[in-house]
Amino acid sequence: MHILATNDDGVTHPGLLALAQALSQLGQVTIFAPERNWSASGHVKTLHKPLRVRETTLEDGSPALTTDGSPSDCVALALLGLIEDPIDIVVSGINPFANVGHDVTYSGTVTAAMEATIFGVPGVAVSIDSDREDGGDIAYKAAAEITSNLVRTIIDRPLPSGVLLNLNIPNKPLPEVHGVRITRQGLRVYRDELIEREDPRGRKYYWIGGKPPTGVPKPGTDIGALSEGYASITPLSLDLTAADMIQVLEGWNFRI
Amino acid sequence: MHILATNDDGVTHPGLLALAQALSQLGQVTIFAPERNWSASGHVKTLHKPLRVRETTLEDGSPALTTDGSPSDCVALALLGLIEDPIDIVVSGINPFANVGHDVTYSGTVTAAMEATIFGVPGVAVSIDSDREDGGDIAYKAAAEITSNLVRTIIDRPLPSGVLLNLNIPNKPLPEVHGVRITRQGLRVYRDELIEREDPRGRKYYWIGGKPPTGVPKPGTDIGALSEGYASITPLSLDLTAADMIQVLEGWNFRI
Repeated sequence: MHILATNDDGVTHPGLLALAQALSQLGQVTIFAPERNWSASGHVKTLHKPLRVRETTLEDGSPALTTDGSPSDCVALALLGLIEDPIDIVVSGINPFANVGHDVTYSGTVTAAMEATIFGVPGVAVSIDSDREDGGDIAYKAAAEITSNLVRTIIDRPLPSGVLLNLNIPNKPLPEVHGVRITRQGLRVYRDELIEREDPRGRKYYWIGGKPPTGVPKPGTDIGALSEGYASITPLSLDLTAADMIQVLEGWNFRI
Repeated sequence: MHILATNDDGVTHPGLLALAQALSQLGQVTIFAPERNWSASGHVKTLHKPLRVRETTLEDGSPALTTDGSPSDCVALALLGLIEDPIDIVVSGINPFANVGHDVTYSGTVTAAMEATIFGVPGVAVSIDSDREDGGDIAYKAAAEITSNLVRTIIDRPLPSGVLLNLNIPNKPLPEVHGVRITRQGLRVYRDELIEREDPRGRKYYWIGGKPPTGVPKPGTDIGALSEGYASITPLSLDLTAADMIQVLEGWNFRI
Protein backbone atom coordinates (compact mmCIF):
# COMPACT_ATOMS: atom_id res chain seq x y z
CA MET A 1 0.00 0.00 0.00
CA HIS A 2 1.50 3.32 -1.14
CA ILE A 3 -0.19 6.49 0.08
CA LEU A 4 0.52 10.03 -1.13
CA ALA A 5 -0.07 12.59 1.65
CA THR A 6 -0.48 16.24 0.70
CA ASN A 7 -2.19 19.36 2.00
CA ASP A 8 -2.92 22.99 1.17
CA ASP A 9 -1.42 24.61 4.25
CA GLY A 10 2.18 23.87 3.35
CA VAL A 11 4.60 21.06 4.04
CA THR A 12 5.48 22.30 7.55
CA HIS A 13 1.87 22.32 8.80
CA PRO A 14 1.16 20.15 11.89
CA GLY A 15 -2.00 18.69 10.29
CA LEU A 16 0.11 17.07 7.56
CA LEU A 17 2.63 15.71 10.08
CA ALA A 18 -0.12 14.08 12.17
CA LEU A 19 -1.75 12.67 9.02
CA ALA A 20 1.47 11.18 7.64
CA GLN A 21 2.38 9.64 11.00
CA ALA A 22 -1.03 7.97 11.39
CA LEU A 23 -1.17 6.75 7.76
CA SER A 24 2.26 5.10 8.14
CA GLN A 25 0.43 2.31 10.06
CA LEU A 26 -1.19 1.35 6.75
CA GLY A 27 1.83 1.22 4.45
CA GLN A 28 4.41 3.36 2.69
CA VAL A 29 3.65 7.10 2.85
CA THR A 30 5.14 9.62 0.41
CA ILE A 31 4.74 13.23 1.56
CA PHE A 32 4.59 15.90 -1.15
CA ALA A 33 3.07 19.28 -0.31
CA PRO A 34 3.43 22.94 -1.26
CA GLU A 35 6.09 25.21 0.23
CA ARG A 36 3.49 27.78 1.22
CA ASN A 37 -0.13 28.03 2.37
CA TRP A 38 -2.65 27.79 -0.51
CA SER A 39 -5.89 28.06 1.53
CA ALA A 40 -8.94 29.26 -0.42
CA SER A 41 -6.92 29.05 -3.61
CA GLY A 42 -9.22 26.62 -5.43
CA HIS A 43 -8.35 24.03 -8.04
CA VAL A 44 -5.11 25.30 -9.52
CA LYS A 45 -3.10 23.53 -12.18
CA THR A 46 0.12 25.32 -13.07
CA LEU A 47 0.63 25.15 -16.82
CA HIS A 48 2.18 28.53 -17.61
CA LYS A 49 5.44 28.13 -15.71
CA PRO A 50 7.89 25.48 -14.58
CA LEU A 51 7.76 24.04 -11.09
CA ARG A 52 10.62 23.37 -8.72
CA VAL A 53 10.64 20.33 -6.48
CA ARG A 54 13.01 19.94 -3.55
CA GLU A 55 13.58 17.48 -0.75
CA THR A 56 12.90 18.49 2.82
CA THR A 57 12.16 16.84 6.18
CA LEU A 58 9.20 17.18 8.52
CA GLU A 59 9.59 18.01 12.20
CA ASP A 60 9.88 14.30 13.08
CA GLY A 61 12.63 13.76 10.52
CA SER A 62 10.43 12.11 7.87
CA PRO A 63 11.57 12.81 4.32
CA ALA A 64 9.17 14.88 2.23
CA LEU A 65 9.02 16.61 -1.14
CA THR A 66 7.89 20.20 -1.57
CA THR A 67 7.21 22.49 -4.53
CA ASP A 68 6.42 26.08 -5.43
CA GLY A 69 3.28 24.70 -7.12
CA SER A 70 -0.22 24.20 -5.75
CA PRO A 71 -1.67 21.23 -3.85
CA SER A 72 -3.15 19.91 -7.12
CA ASP A 73 0.24 20.33 -8.77
CA CYS A 74 1.76 18.06 -6.09
CA VAL A 75 -0.79 15.39 -6.99
CA ALA A 76 -0.42 15.87 -10.74
CA LEU A 77 3.40 15.82 -10.64
CA ALA A 78 3.38 12.70 -8.46
CA LEU A 79 0.87 10.85 -10.64
CA LEU A 80 2.50 11.94 -13.91
CA GLY A 81 5.58 10.02 -12.83
CA LEU A 82 7.67 12.19 -10.52
CA ILE A 83 7.03 9.55 -7.86
CA GLU A 84 8.10 6.29 -9.44
CA ASP A 85 6.28 3.78 -7.20
CA PRO A 86 2.59 3.51 -8.17
CA ILE A 87 0.31 5.42 -5.77
CA ASP A 88 -2.77 3.60 -4.46
CA ILE A 89 -4.54 6.47 -2.74
CA VAL A 90 -4.07 10.22 -2.19
CA VAL A 91 -4.99 11.70 1.20
CA SER A 92 -5.07 15.48 1.54
CA GLY A 93 -5.11 17.24 4.91
CA ILE A 94 -5.56 17.63 7.75
CA ASN A 95 -7.05 21.05 7.12
CA PRO A 96 -7.51 23.08 10.32
CA PHE A 97 -11.08 24.10 9.44
CA ALA A 98 -14.06 22.12 8.19
CA ASN A 99 -14.57 21.89 4.42
CA VAL A 100 -18.32 21.44 4.32
CA GLY A 101 -21.38 22.68 2.49
CA HIS A 102 -21.63 23.93 -1.03
CA ASP A 103 -18.36 25.82 -1.34
CA VAL A 104 -15.76 23.06 -1.28
CA THR A 105 -14.58 24.15 -4.74
CA TYR A 106 -12.63 26.92 -2.95
CA SER A 107 -10.72 24.37 -0.93
CA GLY A 108 -7.17 23.40 -1.82
CA THR A 109 -7.59 20.36 0.46
CA VAL A 110 -10.61 19.11 -1.46
CA THR A 111 -9.36 20.03 -4.94
CA ALA A 112 -6.10 18.12 -4.33
CA ALA A 113 -8.23 15.01 -3.71
CA MET A 114 -10.25 15.89 -6.85
CA GLU A 115 -7.01 15.97 -8.83
CA ALA A 116 -6.30 12.39 -7.74
CA THR A 117 -9.80 11.37 -8.84
CA ILE A 118 -9.25 13.01 -12.23
CA PHE A 119 -6.16 10.78 -12.58
CA GLY A 120 -8.24 7.72 -11.64
CA VAL A 121 -6.64 7.31 -8.20
CA PRO A 122 -8.84 7.29 -5.07
CA GLY A 123 -8.79 10.70 -3.38
CA VAL A 124 -9.67 11.58 0.21
CA ALA A 125 -9.81 15.08 1.72
CA VAL A 126 -9.60 15.44 5.50
CA SER A 127 -10.49 18.48 7.60
CA ILE A 128 -11.01 19.09 11.29
CA ASP A 129 -13.88 21.23 12.51
CA SER A 130 -11.95 23.62 14.73
CA ASP A 131 -13.39 26.98 15.62
CA ARG A 132 -11.73 29.70 13.60
CA GLU A 133 -12.77 32.26 16.14
CA ASP A 134 -11.50 30.75 19.38
CA GLY A 135 -8.12 29.75 17.91
CA GLY A 136 -7.66 27.06 20.58
CA ASP A 137 -5.88 23.71 20.37
CA ILE A 138 -6.61 21.46 17.43
CA ALA A 139 -6.88 17.71 18.01
CA TYR A 140 -4.86 16.67 14.96
CA LYS A 141 -3.68 13.41 16.54
CA ALA A 142 -7.20 12.15 17.21
CA ALA A 143 -8.36 13.24 13.75
CA ALA A 144 -5.36 11.52 12.14
CA GLU A 145 -6.13 8.31 14.01
CA ILE A 146 -9.74 8.40 12.82
CA THR A 147 -8.57 9.16 9.26
CA SER A 148 -6.23 6.18 9.31
CA ASN A 149 -9.10 3.89 10.37
CA LEU A 150 -11.39 5.26 7.67
CA VAL A 151 -8.70 5.04 4.96
CA ARG A 152 -8.11 1.39 5.91
CA THR A 153 -11.77 0.69 5.05
CA ILE A 154 -11.61 2.61 1.78
CA ILE A 155 -8.48 0.79 0.65
CA ASP A 156 -10.30 -2.54 0.83
CA ARG A 157 -13.24 -1.36 -1.26
CA PRO A 158 -12.21 0.80 -4.22
CA LEU A 159 -14.23 3.91 -5.04
CA PRO A 160 -16.10 4.17 -8.34
CA SER A 161 -14.44 6.45 -10.88
CA GLY A 162 -15.24 10.15 -10.55
CA VAL A 163 -16.03 9.96 -6.81
CA LEU A 164 -13.87 11.27 -3.99
CA LEU A 165 -14.48 11.28 -0.25
CA ASN A 166 -14.60 14.39 1.89
CA LEU A 167 -13.98 13.65 5.58
CA ASN A 168 -14.68 16.15 8.29
CA ILE A 169 -13.85 15.30 11.87
CA PRO A 170 -14.97 16.99 15.09
CA ASN A 171 -12.23 18.80 16.99
CA LYS A 172 -12.46 16.50 20.01
CA PRO A 173 -10.42 13.83 21.77
CA LEU A 174 -11.02 10.37 20.31
CA PRO A 175 -13.44 9.12 23.05
CA GLU A 176 -15.71 12.13 22.49
CA VAL A 177 -16.27 11.45 18.78
CA HIS A 178 -19.53 9.48 18.64
CA GLY A 179 -18.99 7.64 15.35
CA VAL A 180 -19.16 8.15 11.59
CA ARG A 181 -22.02 9.35 9.45
CA ILE A 182 -22.30 9.19 5.66
CA THR A 183 -23.67 12.58 4.66
CA ARG A 184 -24.78 14.96 1.95
CA GLN A 185 -23.35 18.46 1.56
CA GLY A 186 -25.12 20.99 3.75
CA LEU A 187 -25.66 24.69 3.28
CA ARG A 188 -23.15 27.34 4.25
CA VAL A 189 -24.21 30.63 5.77
CA TYR A 190 -21.89 33.44 4.72
CA ARG A 191 -21.03 36.45 6.79
CA ASP A 192 -18.67 38.21 4.38
CA GLU A 193 -18.48 41.98 4.47
CA LEU A 194 -16.84 44.45 2.15
CA ILE A 195 -14.30 46.55 4.02
CA GLU A 196 -13.29 49.78 2.28
CA ARG A 197 -10.19 51.64 3.53
CA GLU A 198 -7.68 54.23 2.42
CA ASP A 199 -3.98 53.49 2.12
CA PRO A 200 -1.28 55.86 3.50
CA ARG A 201 -1.38 57.69 0.15
CA GLY A 202 -5.14 58.26 0.30
CA ARG A 203 -6.01 55.65 -2.30
CA LYS A 204 -8.89 53.26 -1.67
CA TYR A 205 -8.45 49.56 -1.17
CA TYR A 206 -10.87 46.76 -0.37
CA TRP A 207 -10.73 43.72 1.83
CA ILE A 208 -13.20 40.83 1.86
CA GLY A 209 -13.82 40.74 5.60
CA GLY A 210 -16.53 39.73 8.01
CA LYS A 211 -16.78 36.56 10.05
CA PRO A 212 -16.05 33.00 8.87
CA PRO A 213 -19.04 31.17 7.38
CA THR A 214 -21.28 29.07 9.59
CA GLY A 215 -23.68 26.40 8.36
CA VAL A 216 -27.18 25.03 8.67
CA PRO A 217 -26.90 21.89 10.92
CA LYS A 218 -29.54 19.89 9.05
CA PRO A 219 -29.63 16.16 9.87
CA GLY A 220 -28.12 14.03 7.11
CA THR A 221 -25.62 16.70 6.12
CA ASP A 222 -21.90 17.13 6.83
CA ILE A 223 -22.65 20.20 8.94
CA GLY A 224 -25.36 18.32 10.84
CA ALA A 225 -23.07 15.35 11.61
CA LEU A 226 -20.29 17.58 12.98
CA SER A 227 -22.74 19.52 15.14
CA GLU A 228 -23.82 16.24 16.77
CA GLY A 229 -20.23 15.10 17.42
CA TYR A 230 -19.91 12.63 14.52
CA ALA A 231 -17.21 12.38 11.89
CA SER A 232 -18.70 12.97 8.44
CA ILE A 233 -17.91 11.22 5.17
CA THR A 234 -19.44 12.87 2.10
CA PRO A 235 -19.03 11.22 -1.29
CA LEU A 236 -18.40 13.98 -3.85
CA SER A 237 -18.81 13.62 -7.59
CA LEU A 238 -16.66 15.26 -10.25
CA ASP A 239 -19.80 15.28 -12.37
CA LEU A 240 -21.53 18.49 -11.29
CA THR A 241 -24.51 18.05 -13.62
CA ALA A 242 -27.74 19.16 -11.90
CA ALA A 243 -29.56 16.17 -13.39
CA ASP A 244 -33.03 17.15 -12.22
CA MET A 245 -32.72 20.46 -14.10
CA ILE A 246 -32.17 18.90 -17.52
CA GLN A 247 -35.84 18.26 -18.21
CA VAL A 248 -36.80 21.65 -16.78
CA LEU A 249 -34.35 23.45 -19.08
CA GLU A 250 -35.56 21.46 -22.07
CA GLY A 251 -38.97 23.09 -21.49
CA TRP A 252 -37.50 26.59 -21.67
CA ASN A 253 -37.23 26.49 -25.49
CA PHE A 254 -33.84 28.11 -25.87
CA ARG A 255 -33.23 29.56 -29.34
CA ILE A 256 -29.87 30.65 -30.66
CA MET B 1 -32.08 44.42 -16.06
CA HIS B 2 -28.55 44.82 -14.69
CA ILE B 3 -25.91 42.35 -15.86
CA LEU B 4 -22.41 41.93 -14.43
CA ALA B 5 -19.96 40.75 -17.10
CA THR B 6 -16.65 39.26 -16.01
CA ASN B 7 -14.07 36.76 -17.28
CA ASP B 8 -10.88 34.96 -16.31
CA ASP B 9 -8.68 36.07 -19.20
CA GLY B 10 -8.42 39.68 -18.09
CA VAL B 11 -10.36 42.86 -18.75
CA THR B 12 -8.69 43.51 -22.13
CA HIS B 13 -9.63 40.12 -23.62
CA PRO B 14 -11.70 40.23 -26.85
CA GLY B 15 -14.10 37.56 -25.53
CA LEU B 16 -15.24 39.92 -22.76
CA LEU B 17 -15.62 42.84 -25.18
CA ALA B 18 -17.84 40.81 -27.53
CA LEU B 19 -19.86 39.50 -24.56
CA ALA B 20 -20.46 42.94 -23.05
CA GLN B 21 -21.44 44.42 -26.41
CA ALA B 22 -23.99 41.68 -27.10
CA LEU B 23 -25.44 41.73 -23.57
CA SER B 24 -25.99 45.49 -23.78
CA GLN B 25 -29.04 44.67 -25.97
CA LEU B 26 -30.67 43.23 -22.83
CA GLY B 27 -30.09 46.04 -20.34
CA GLN B 28 -27.40 47.79 -18.30
CA VAL B 29 -24.04 45.98 -18.32
CA THR B 30 -21.35 46.55 -15.67
CA ILE B 31 -17.96 45.17 -16.66
CA PHE B 32 -15.63 44.10 -13.85
CA ALA B 33 -12.79 41.71 -14.61
CA PRO B 34 -9.25 40.93 -13.46
CA GLU B 35 -6.22 42.87 -14.65
CA ARG B 36 -4.45 39.68 -15.68
CA ASN B 37 -5.18 36.22 -17.05
CA TRP B 38 -6.34 33.73 -14.38
CA SER B 39 -6.87 30.67 -16.61
CA ALA B 40 -6.72 27.29 -14.83
CA SER B 41 -6.57 29.12 -11.52
CA GLY B 42 -9.68 27.55 -9.99
CA HIS B 43 -12.07 29.01 -7.45
CA VAL B 44 -10.02 31.67 -5.70
CA LYS B 45 -11.31 33.97 -3.00
CA THR B 46 -8.73 36.46 -1.80
CA LEU B 47 -8.99 36.81 1.97
CA HIS B 48 -5.36 37.26 3.00
CA LYS B 49 -4.68 40.59 1.32
CA PRO B 50 -6.43 43.75 0.22
CA LEU B 51 -7.61 44.24 -3.33
CA ARG B 52 -7.27 47.27 -5.52
CA VAL B 53 -10.02 48.31 -7.89
CA ARG B 54 -9.51 50.83 -10.68
CA GLU B 55 -11.51 52.24 -13.57
CA THR B 56 -10.50 51.48 -17.12
CA THR B 57 -12.05 51.43 -20.59
CA LEU B 58 -12.43 48.63 -23.09
CA GLU B 59 -11.28 48.92 -26.71
CA ASP B 60 -14.67 50.34 -27.74
CA GLY B 61 -14.56 53.00 -25.04
CA SER B 62 -16.97 51.24 -22.63
CA PRO B 63 -16.20 51.96 -18.98
CA ALA B 64 -15.06 48.95 -16.95
CA LEU B 65 -13.66 48.12 -13.52
CA THR B 66 -10.61 45.98 -12.99
CA THR B 67 -8.82 44.50 -9.98
CA ASP B 68 -5.67 42.65 -8.96
CA GLY B 69 -8.01 39.98 -7.54
CA SER B 70 -9.41 36.85 -9.16
CA PRO B 71 -12.53 36.42 -11.32
CA SER B 72 -14.44 35.23 -8.22
CA ASP B 73 -13.17 38.27 -6.32
CA CYS B 74 -14.71 40.51 -8.99
CA VAL B 75 -18.06 38.82 -8.42
CA ALA B 76 -17.75 38.84 -4.62
CA LEU B 77 -16.69 42.51 -4.47
CA ALA B 78 -19.54 43.52 -6.79
CA LEU B 79 -22.18 41.55 -4.90
CA LEU B 80 -20.89 42.63 -1.48
CA GLY B 81 -21.75 46.18 -2.44
CA LEU B 82 -18.91 47.68 -4.47
CA ILE B 83 -21.44 47.97 -7.31
CA GLU B 84 -24.37 49.86 -5.83
CA ASP B 85 -27.13 48.95 -8.31
CA PRO B 86 -28.51 45.46 -7.61
CA ILE B 87 -27.20 42.84 -10.05
CA ASP B 88 -29.73 40.50 -11.66
CA ILE B 89 -27.38 38.06 -13.35
CA VAL B 90 -23.63 37.43 -13.68
CA VAL B 91 -22.26 36.29 -17.04
CA SER B 92 -18.64 35.12 -17.20
CA GLY B 93 -16.72 34.73 -20.47
CA ILE B 94 -16.31 34.34 -23.31
CA ASN B 95 -13.51 31.89 -22.59
CA PRO B 96 -11.49 31.03 -25.72
CA PHE B 97 -11.62 27.27 -25.04
CA ALA B 98 -14.45 24.94 -24.11
CA ASN B 99 -15.07 24.32 -20.39
CA VAL B 100 -16.58 20.87 -20.57
CA GLY B 101 -16.40 17.50 -18.89
CA HIS B 102 -15.53 16.71 -15.34
CA ASP B 103 -12.81 19.26 -14.70
CA VAL B 104 -14.69 22.56 -14.74
CA THR B 105 -13.53 23.19 -11.16
CA TYR B 106 -10.19 24.34 -12.67
CA SER B 107 -11.95 27.00 -14.67
CA GLY B 108 -11.92 30.63 -13.60
CA THR B 109 -14.78 31.24 -16.04
CA VAL B 110 -16.99 28.63 -14.40
CA THR B 111 -15.98 29.38 -10.80
CA ALA B 112 -16.81 33.08 -11.29
CA ALA B 113 -20.36 31.97 -12.21
CA MET B 114 -20.31 29.64 -9.17
CA GLU B 115 -19.43 32.61 -6.96
CA ALA B 116 -22.58 34.39 -8.17
CA THR B 117 -24.64 31.29 -7.39
CA ILE B 118 -23.14 31.17 -3.87
CA PHE B 119 -24.40 34.75 -3.44
CA GLY B 120 -27.87 33.71 -4.66
CA VAL B 121 -27.55 35.52 -8.00
CA PRO B 122 -28.00 33.58 -11.28
CA GLY B 123 -24.61 32.73 -12.79
CA VAL B 124 -23.79 31.81 -16.37
CA ALA B 125 -20.38 30.72 -17.72
CA VAL B 126 -19.72 31.00 -21.45
CA SER B 127 -16.93 29.38 -23.44
CA ILE B 128 -16.26 28.89 -27.13
CA ASP B 129 -14.96 25.60 -28.43
CA SER B 130 -11.97 26.85 -30.40
CA ASP B 131 -9.13 24.52 -31.22
CA ARG B 132 -6.17 25.20 -28.96
CA GLU B 133 -3.86 23.59 -31.43
CA ASP B 134 -4.73 25.39 -34.66
CA GLY B 135 -4.79 28.84 -33.02
CA GLY B 136 -7.07 30.21 -35.78
CA ASP B 137 -9.74 32.89 -35.60
CA ILE B 138 -12.30 32.70 -32.83
CA ALA B 139 -15.93 33.58 -33.64
CA TYR B 140 -16.54 35.67 -30.49
CA LYS B 141 -19.21 37.82 -32.15
CA ALA B 142 -21.37 34.85 -33.13
CA ALA B 143 -20.91 33.25 -29.70
CA ALA B 144 -21.80 36.54 -27.98
CA GLU B 145 -24.96 36.87 -30.06
CA ILE B 146 -25.99 33.32 -29.11
CA THR B 147 -25.17 34.03 -25.45
CA SER B 148 -27.33 37.14 -25.49
CA ASN B 149 -30.28 35.13 -26.86
CA LEU B 150 -29.83 32.40 -24.24
CA VAL B 151 -29.43 34.89 -21.38
CA ARG B 152 -32.68 36.56 -22.49
CA THR B 153 -34.47 33.25 -21.91
CA ILE B 154 -32.81 32.67 -18.52
CA ILE B 155 -33.74 36.14 -17.27
CA ASP B 156 -37.42 35.38 -17.76
CA ARG B 157 -37.28 32.12 -15.80
CA PRO B 158 -35.12 32.32 -12.67
CA LEU B 159 -32.78 29.43 -11.85
CA PRO B 160 -33.30 27.40 -8.66
CA SER B 161 -30.80 28.20 -5.91
CA GLY B 162 -27.49 26.36 -6.11
CA VAL B 163 -27.65 25.85 -9.89
CA LEU B 164 -25.57 27.69 -12.50
CA LEU B 165 -25.49 27.28 -16.26
CA ASN B 166 -22.42 26.36 -18.24
CA LEU B 167 -22.69 27.36 -21.91
CA ASN B 168 -20.31 26.09 -24.54
CA ILE B 169 -20.65 27.32 -28.09
CA PRO B 170 -19.15 25.92 -31.30
CA ASN B 171 -16.51 28.11 -32.91
CA LYS B 172 -18.56 28.71 -36.05
CA PRO B 173 -20.40 31.53 -37.81
CA LEU B 174 -23.99 31.89 -36.58
CA PRO B 175 -25.69 30.08 -39.53
CA GLU B 176 -23.50 27.01 -38.97
CA VAL B 177 -24.57 26.47 -35.34
CA HIS B 178 -27.40 23.94 -35.53
CA GLY B 179 -29.22 24.82 -32.29
CA VAL B 180 -29.03 24.32 -28.54
CA ARG B 181 -28.85 21.13 -26.52
CA ILE B 182 -29.35 20.72 -22.80
CA THR B 183 -26.58 18.36 -21.72
CA ARG B 184 -24.79 16.48 -18.96
CA GLN B 185 -21.06 16.82 -18.31
CA GLY B 186 -19.02 14.49 -20.48
CA LEU B 187 -15.67 12.86 -19.88
CA ARG B 188 -12.36 14.53 -20.54
CA VAL B 189 -9.41 12.63 -21.95
CA TYR B 190 -6.14 13.98 -20.62
CA ARG B 191 -2.87 14.02 -22.48
CA ASP B 192 -0.67 15.64 -19.82
CA GLU B 193 2.98 14.72 -19.70
CA LEU B 194 5.66 15.44 -17.16
CA ILE B 195 8.53 17.35 -18.73
CA GLU B 196 11.79 17.28 -16.78
CA ARG B 197 14.55 19.73 -17.73
CA GLU B 198 17.68 21.33 -16.33
CA ASP B 199 18.04 25.07 -15.83
CA PRO B 200 21.18 27.01 -16.91
CA ARG B 201 22.68 26.21 -13.49
CA GLY B 202 22.15 22.45 -13.86
CA ARG B 203 19.21 22.26 -11.45
CA LYS B 204 16.13 20.26 -12.38
CA TYR B 205 12.76 21.80 -13.03
CA TYR B 206 9.44 20.33 -14.13
CA TRP B 207 6.73 21.47 -16.47
CA ILE B 208 3.26 19.95 -16.80
CA GLY B 209 3.24 19.58 -20.59
CA GLY B 210 1.63 17.40 -23.21
CA LYS B 211 -1.33 18.20 -25.42
CA PRO B 212 -4.59 19.89 -24.36
CA PRO B 213 -7.29 17.48 -23.19
CA THR B 214 -9.80 16.07 -25.65
CA GLY B 215 -13.13 14.50 -24.72
CA VAL B 216 -15.44 11.58 -25.34
CA PRO B 217 -18.18 12.89 -27.73
CA LYS B 218 -20.98 10.86 -26.15
CA PRO B 219 -24.54 11.90 -27.15
CA GLY B 220 -26.32 13.83 -24.39
CA THR B 221 -23.10 15.39 -23.09
CA ASP B 222 -21.56 18.84 -23.52
CA ILE B 223 -18.71 17.34 -25.53
CA GLY B 224 -21.17 15.40 -27.71
CA ALA B 225 -23.28 18.49 -28.47
CA LEU B 226 -20.26 20.55 -29.54
CA SER B 227 -18.97 17.76 -31.75
CA GLU B 228 -22.30 17.78 -33.61
CA GLY B 229 -22.31 21.56 -34.08
CA TYR B 230 -24.75 22.45 -31.29
CA ALA B 231 -24.41 24.97 -28.49
CA SER B 232 -24.50 23.19 -25.12
CA ILE B 233 -26.18 24.30 -21.90
CA THR B 234 -25.24 22.20 -18.86
CA PRO B 235 -26.94 22.90 -15.53
CA LEU B 236 -24.29 22.57 -12.81
CA SER B 237 -24.99 22.08 -9.13
CA LEU B 238 -22.98 23.53 -6.25
CA ASP B 239 -24.02 20.41 -4.34
CA LEU B 240 -21.38 17.88 -5.37
CA THR B 241 -22.82 15.04 -3.28
CA ALA B 242 -22.59 11.72 -5.16
CA ALA B 243 -26.06 10.79 -3.93
CA ASP B 244 -26.05 7.24 -5.30
CA MET B 245 -22.92 6.48 -3.24
CA ILE B 246 -24.50 7.28 0.13
CA GLN B 247 -26.21 3.92 0.52
CA VAL B 248 -23.14 2.09 -0.79
CA LEU B 249 -20.89 3.79 1.76
CA GLU B 250 -23.33 3.05 4.55
CA GLY B 251 -22.72 -0.62 3.83
CA TRP B 252 -18.96 -0.26 4.29
CA ASN B 253 -19.24 -0.15 8.09
CA PHE B 254 -16.75 2.59 8.81
CA ARG B 255 -15.42 2.57 12.38
CA ILE B 256 -13.51 5.40 13.97
